[in-house]
Formats: sequence, structure tokens, C-alpha cells
Amino acid sequence: MDRHLLSINDLTRAEAFGILNTAHELSIISDGTLKKLPTLRGRTVVNLFFEDSTRTRISFESAAKRLSADVINFSAKGSSVSKGESLKDTAQTLQAMGADAVIIRHGASGAAQRLADSGWIQASVINAGDGTHEHPTQALLDAYTIRNSFPEYTDSFEGLRVAIVGDILHSRVARSNVLLLKKLGAQVTLLAPPTLLPVGVDSWGVGTSYQFDEVIPKVDVVMMLRVQSERMLDSFFPSEREYSRSFGLDSRRLDLLPPRSIVMHPGPMNRGLEISAESADSHKSVVLAQVANGVLIRMAVLYQLLGGQTLGDTSSVQPITQVANK
Amino acid sequence: MDRHLLSINDLTRAEAFGILNTAHELSIISDGTLKKLPTLRGRTVVNLFFEDSTRTRISFESAAKRLSADVINFSAKGSSVSKGESLKDTAQTLQAMGADAVIIRHGASGAAQRLADSGWIQASVINAGDGTHEHPTQALLDAYTIRNSFPEYTDSFEGLRVAIVGDILHSRVARSNVLLLKKLGAQVTLLAPPTLLPVGVDSWGVGTSYQFDEVIPKVDVVMMLRVQSERMLDSFFPSEREYSRSFGLDSRRLDLLPPRSIVMHPGPMNRGLEISAESADSHKSVVLAQVANGVLIRMAVLYQLLGGQTLGDTSSVQPITQVANK
Amino acid sequence: MDRHLLSINDLTRAEAFGILNTAHELSIISDGTLKKLPTLRGRTVVNLFFEDSTRTRISFESAAKRLSADVINFSAKGSSVSKGESLKDTAQTLQAMGADAVIIRHGASGAAQRLADSGWIQASVINAGDGTHEHPTQALLDAYTIRNSFPEYTDSFEGLRVAIVGDILHSRVARSNVLLLKKLGAQVTLLAPPTLLPVGVDSWGVGTSYQFDEVIPKVDVVMMLRVQSERMLDSFFPSEREYSRSFGLDSRRLDLLPPRSIVMHPGPMNRGLEISAESADSHKSVVLAQVANGVLIRMAVLYQLLGGQTLGDTSSVQPITQVANK
Repeated sequence: MDRHLLSINDLTRAEAFGILNTAHELSIISDGTLKKLPTLRGRTVVNLFFEDSTRTRISFESAAKRLSADVINFSAKGSSVSKGESLKDTAQTLQAMGADAVIIRHGASGAAQRLADSGWIQASVINAGDGTHEHPTQALLDAYTIRNSFPEYTDSFEGLRVAIVGDILHSRVARSNVLLLKKLGAQVTLLAPPTLLPVGVDSWGVGTSYQFDEVIPKVDVVMMLRVQSERMLDSFFPSEREYSRSFGLDSRRLDLLPPRSIVMHPGPMNRGLEISAESADSHKSVVLAQVANGVLIRMAVLYQLLGGQTLGDTSSVQPITQVANK
Repeated sequence: MDRHLLSINDLTRAEAFGILNTAHELSIISDGTLKKLPTLRGRTVVNLFFEDSTRTRISFESAAKRLSADVINFSAKGSSVSKGESLKDTAQTLQAMGADAVIIRHGASGAAQRLADSGWIQASVINAGDGTHEHPTQALLDAYTIRNSFPEYTDSFEGLRVAIVGDILHSRVARSNVLLLKKLGAQVTLLAPPTLLPVGVDSWGVGTSYQFDEVIPKVDVVMMLRVQSERMLDSFFPSEREYSRSFGLDSRRLDLLPPRSIVMHPGPMNRGLEISAESADSHKSVVLAQVANGVLIRMAVLYQLLGGQTLGDTSSVQPITQVANK
Repeated sequence: MDRHLLSINDLTRAEAFGILNTAHELSIISDGTLKKLPTLRGRTVVNLFFEDSTRTRISFESAAKRLSADVINFSAKGSSVSKGESLKDTAQTLQAMGADAVIIRHGASGAAQRLADSGWIQASVINAGDGTHEHPTQALLDAYTIRNSFPEYTDSFEGLRVAIVGDILHSRVARSNVLLLKKLGAQVTLLAPPTLLPVGVDSWGVGTSYQFDEVIPKVDVVMMLRVQSERMLDSFFPSEREYSRSFGLDSRRLDLLPPRSIVMHPGPMNRGLEISAESADSHKSVVLAQVANGVLIRMAVLYQLLGGQTLGDTSSVQPITQVANK
């Protein structure tokens, strides 16, 4: 792991905590009157989105702008890509235009890795979701959010119990979270119907269950995944009502959660499907904190990747503060 | 009226004139060499547009950028909204991302109010058009344009005669203008076919007429509304030709206007339908001034809402000039 | 030629070289640590694109932002234009909003000229492609790229031999390149099937040929044009395979090129159609340099047009350097 962020596998435990620490420093600055740092002035960050995702795009755009970078949004829709341009030509174009970082979201698993390894581009590549593979900044912001709720796990997640609930099979959010949570020491249980668990999950080092009610009283964190209704139609699951009954977080289950536990969701939520409105808005829900933390984590990643530091280098504490005081 | 601008009803007469005065100060600065003020540096302004309107979006974007704010464009097309995300989730997302102001355009009347009242968001909300309800910055820029043409009405519109012509029923521009013009003291006449006048218009405190030729020699301002051709198809009116003959501003009617009178249109114009090309381009037309004034009014509103002042506070004169001289 | 760049015909040879020289100065600055110049701070540059072209739009956007201008992207898709707004109204709107430069791409030949001549707008107009007419910044970046490869032609292209290959008839890139290359002194040969050569090409002062193999050993520069596959369907040419065989740059032809010659393509390339992957990626290919030079040329044009200088005025050398050192 040097100048890219493609997969949670690229990070050591120390590097991952280093990113969380940088985000924490940035949160202290952002709470003050100064919202904008000059760190990346003159740098160009490109949002290269082959899939629509306004939320993720805006989160990266906000993060880059708060660090004073110039942001160029490149939506593959209506672009030369639709005229047959390959990822290679697009990458080389961005390289030639002087992009310092390329944030890529792509429907194909491995697209970010391919971009980084190709030699087509010297920019830092940040994976903002590739197919069903990974979405590392989502996992980092989730870990940051968990840590904010449980100060006792600041330096290690040993002893923390997390349940991830829903369509594990197709979820890059689940995959990145499993990798990161285990790396940090947490104990993870996957809750899903058998049809939505990946082959080979036995080797992941996590528990699995189909019984939400049994698991829920014994977790600190319940992380709900979004149901992709188009997948429903592909008959991975009989019906929305049935899904909801077995794997939805409704009010009854909310009451079964331990007192200090928290409810997470990567958004956007299907209220009434995988999560009830009451659960989404309860005091246990940290969904909005996740969104806010998304900007901080993306600032931290951009700061470390483009600021001339190794990702996870915690010696960055000084520079940030100094810069902010200028 | 504190930190939002949702409806003309939120403003007192003094506050409305206060906004016009701030816009006037800004126009003095903009005419000089300095086009950009540092006032909102580090602030984030979001254009949250659920309806397409490039003109209005660009006007707000220009205004925010001239005040050095960061602007994020959020088009609901192709966004998570189309994946079923509610206004609530979108709002909370923008809040979590640190938006300082949200400019919302929405097809549903009351959407801006709902966003502001919900508690979902702390940002200032500016209504950029909600259904057939209101479009307050349009009315403010129109009032500002009128005042520039008639210096005798600088402190009050008492005695000013305005005719608003066309589809009053569906026009948020008409609604906001009626509210503001009456608040400032003007005498308003609505000119429309009976099918395009709202029920209860008798209680609005305005005159109504179906006879354009009778009204036109007695007005200072004639404000033409855009014909929405899709409404024509809904058979509110028999035909375009018939509409044009009865309610279009053609050359003959242009000649009937008093010498100092002015012609307004919120744009985009249907030349040849509600307004002839000659009328649109005549020396009486202030259509382009309306567009230019739109940026000034939106700067004034953003300046007052985000600059820590009450909207309409005319003590802002000093700060603007001081800031500009820095 | 004063404040617009509409056609290569607007430039004298000295002015054209002046732009290349300014781009060269800017390249020296960009290679250093400073990537951003404050030259156009407070100026507004509008990308008015009636045709999709992400590459060209991003190139202009990057150029403007590196000069610290504010950039507003105006895509005609989903804009008021689709509600029947004319080019006139759009132009007047941009004028009223204070645009300093308008970069226009339009499907109709002459649209840029019309915008500049109309009196609708005072902004500088830059033609970013109008129908099958011209694309002057593409020709300038191509000339700049050629000069970088052949230092002996720094002050004149006399003696330089260029072949332009493909659909000359519909190509604004070809048209602008012919005009500029001849103006600078080069000897140009057009290689195309008879159906894809314009009527009256005899008067252009260029050579024509249908025999790629005969021409290719005698050129310094071979400039491949993109095949528009929709044109293929219009039966200008029998089949892709036949086109490729007669006018594609494959490996065999690549070997026929003189040792110092270069291969150019405006992008995006149809690898395997007009150019083989091997040719596109060979050491002779300067395709990526063209993209990078595109940003420099567009910076140079914006710098000269908006920086208060006559386009092509080479006395600009000092100011750029001084500004960069601030």
C-alpha cells in the first residue's frame, strides 16, 4: 500500500487506525470555524463514475474541496465512453490532463485495481466501489463511526461484536467491512438467507446465522445492508414481505438489542424493507454520523495519499494542525 | 423570517427592501474591477434540483461562487433519489455533509417549507421554486428590476401599476410577485382567461381582467408569463393562435403601452407565442436586466442568510464595502 | 482576430505561433511545483456544450481552473434549450450572468461565429467544435505537439510533410488542421476514399491520394481521424473491414513510416478500426501528448483572450513568469 487505496487488504492494522486518527484530527479542525484547509491547493481530483452514485460522489467532492483541491466530475454517461472509448483511453486522458487522484466507481469487480496496475496513469487511485468486490472508504468510515460510539475500542476492536445483515453475496460494503473489522480484531457474524451468502464463506473467519432473533441480543453493532430490489426480482428471495420478516430490523428487534448497541446502514435506506422507519430514526441509529464521517474519512485518505505521506502515517498530526493555524 | 427564504410571506416590507438594498450595494462592487468577494469562503452551497432548470441553477451557482462559496450541484436525476431515497434521507445526507445552504427546486408545492421545518437539516433553505406555489427570489429580482427603472419608487411602490399576464393559475412566479408587489405597495392587475385564474383570486386584493387592450395603456409594468405548452394540451386554452391573439404582447399592444413603461418576462420566452420577438427585443424590454439582477439578488440573499445577519438588515452596507476593499 | 477564437482563419501565422509560445511558457511553469496561476481569479468561464464531449469539456475546465477562473458547465441536455429556448436567449442569459468567456460546442456549423457576431454577448467566444466546420484549439494543440517532436520547425513548418487520413468530409478537426498547417508552411496530403473528400478540395492547396501505402513512407506526421461509425451506416463506405484495410494504420504501415515520424489521433480512438492497438501504443504515437498539450493550449488561449492581451502577442512571456513567482 503506497499511493493507492484499492482494497482493505492493502492496509495493515496500524495503517487503518492511522487513517481513523487522521480523520479524528480533521474532525477537530472542522468543528472549529475553519472548514477549509489549503493542503491540496492546485491539485486536481477526478471523480470517474461509471455507475451513478450521487451520495458517494458528493462525499468525495466535499472532501476534496475542503482540502482546496480542484474537482472534476467525469460521469461515464454521455461521455466518450459511450462512443466506445476504453477504460485505458479514459485513464490515459486523465493522466495527460494532470489528475493527481482518480476516484473510480465501476460496475466491474477489479476495475480500480486494473486502473492502478496498468501503468496508464500515475495518479493515486481510490476505489469508490467496484462491482461486488470492495468499497474500502465505506468500511473505514464505518469503523470510524463504531469507534466514536465505543471509546473502549479506540486502539483495538478485540471483543467488539458486529452483525452484518442482508445480501452479503452481492455487497461490496459487506466484503470491505468483513475484511476491515477482522483486521481490527472484531468478531463478525453474517446474517443472511443461504442464497445470499457467498460460496466459501466458511474460510472468511466469521460466524454465519439465519436466525436474526438469536443473534441480535448479543451484538454491539448491527449493520443493515441495502436490499437491491432488482436482485429480489432475480428471485434470490421469495418476496419483500418475507425478507422483511426474517431479516428486517423492525421495532421488536430494535428492543432486543443491548442498551449500548448501535444501528448502522450505508444508505440509501429502504425504510419499511430492510429497516423500519422507527429503527432508522431511533437514538441507536448512527446512520447520519456515518454520512458525516464519510467526508472526514475521504479527507483523511486524500490528505495522506496526496499530501506526500504514507497512508496510515500517524505523524501527520502536527502538519494538519499547523496548516490549520496558518 | 430568520435563516430561510421560503416564501415572500416570510418577509416584512422593510426586509424586502433591505434585500434590494444589499443587491444594489453588490451591483456597485460588481461594476468595479472586483467581481469576487471572500464573504462565504469555506461555506458550502448545495443546488438541490428535483426539476431541471439550468438558468436558475446557474444563477444561484454564479451568485455563490462570486461570494467564494463552494458549490455542489445535486441533480435528482440519476441520483439515489431515483433509487427510492426520500427527501428526508437526501436532506439528512446534505446536513451530514456540512451544507450551509440548500437551494431547492421541487415539483411539489411546499417542498421547501417541509425541508426547512422538518428538523432534518440545519442549513439555510432557499426556495428556488416549489410546484405552483412560490419562487421568491424571482419576485425579488423583478422588484429590483422595477425599482431600477423607476427611481421614484425607491422606498415604496405606492402608485406603481403592474399587470401580470398569462397562466396565473399554475405560475409560482405570478404568486410570489403578487405577494411581493402588494407588500411593497403596488397596484396589481391579473390578465388571464377565466380558466387560468385561481379559485379565490377575489381575496388576493388585486384586480382581474380579460381585456388586455383595455388594461395596457394604464400600466407602468407589464409582466408576461411563460406559456407551458404542455398545459395547452391539457386544454386550459383552445389554441396557441387564440391565446396569442388574446393575451400575447404583440407589436400593436407594445405601442399601446405608456412611454416610460417596461416589459418583463421571467424567461425562457416563447417568442411568437406569449411575446413577439419585437416586444422581447424592444427598448422597453428589461428581460436581460432581470437575468443579471437575478445573480445580484441571489448574492444578496446568500450574503444575508449565511453572513450572520438577519435577512433585510440594511446595516450590511458597511461590511460589504469593507470586505470588498480588503 | 481580437477577443474571440472562432476559426483558424482569424489568426495570422505570427499570432498562431504566439499561442504556441505562450503554451510553451505555461508548460515550463506547470512542470514545476506550481500548477495553478492566479491570472483569471474572479473571471467566469462557461462551457456551453450542445453536443456531448466529456474530453473536450474537461480539457477546457482543467485549463480554466488552473488559471483560477470559476467554471460553469452548461449542458444543453435537460436545459431550458430543450424547452424551446433559442441560442439567442441562452447567449443573452450567459451575458447577463457575467460570463467572461463562453466555450461553445454545437452541432451546427457556424454556431460559434453566430454567437460572437450577434451582439448578444460581450464575452470572448471560443469555438470548441461547430458541426463539420472547425475546431481551432484542436489544430493548435496538434501544431504544438508537432513542434515539440520536430525542434527544427520551431519558427516555420516549411518542409514538414503531414498526411491526414480518413473522413475529411465530415471532420472539423481535419478542416482546422489543414488551415493551420498550411498557414504555418507545412505540405499537407489528404488520404481518403473519394466519397469522404469534400467537393472543391482542389482549391484547398493540398495534395490528395487514395493510396496510403504510397504516401506513408514520405511523411513526417500521419494524423489519423476518428471513424464515426454512424457515418459508416450512412454508406459512405462499404464496411469497417474494407475501411481498415485501405485507410487503417496497422502494424505493416507503421513499419513503412520514416524513422523520426510521429502518429497522431484526436481521440477517442477506435482501436482496431482506423488505428491498430500496436500503432496507438507505439513509441511513434504522440496521442497522449496531444491530450496533455490540449490543456496547455487552452490555457494559453484563455490567458491571451481574457488576460487583456491580443491573441498571439508574445510579449506575454514576462507576465506569466512574474505571476507564477508571486
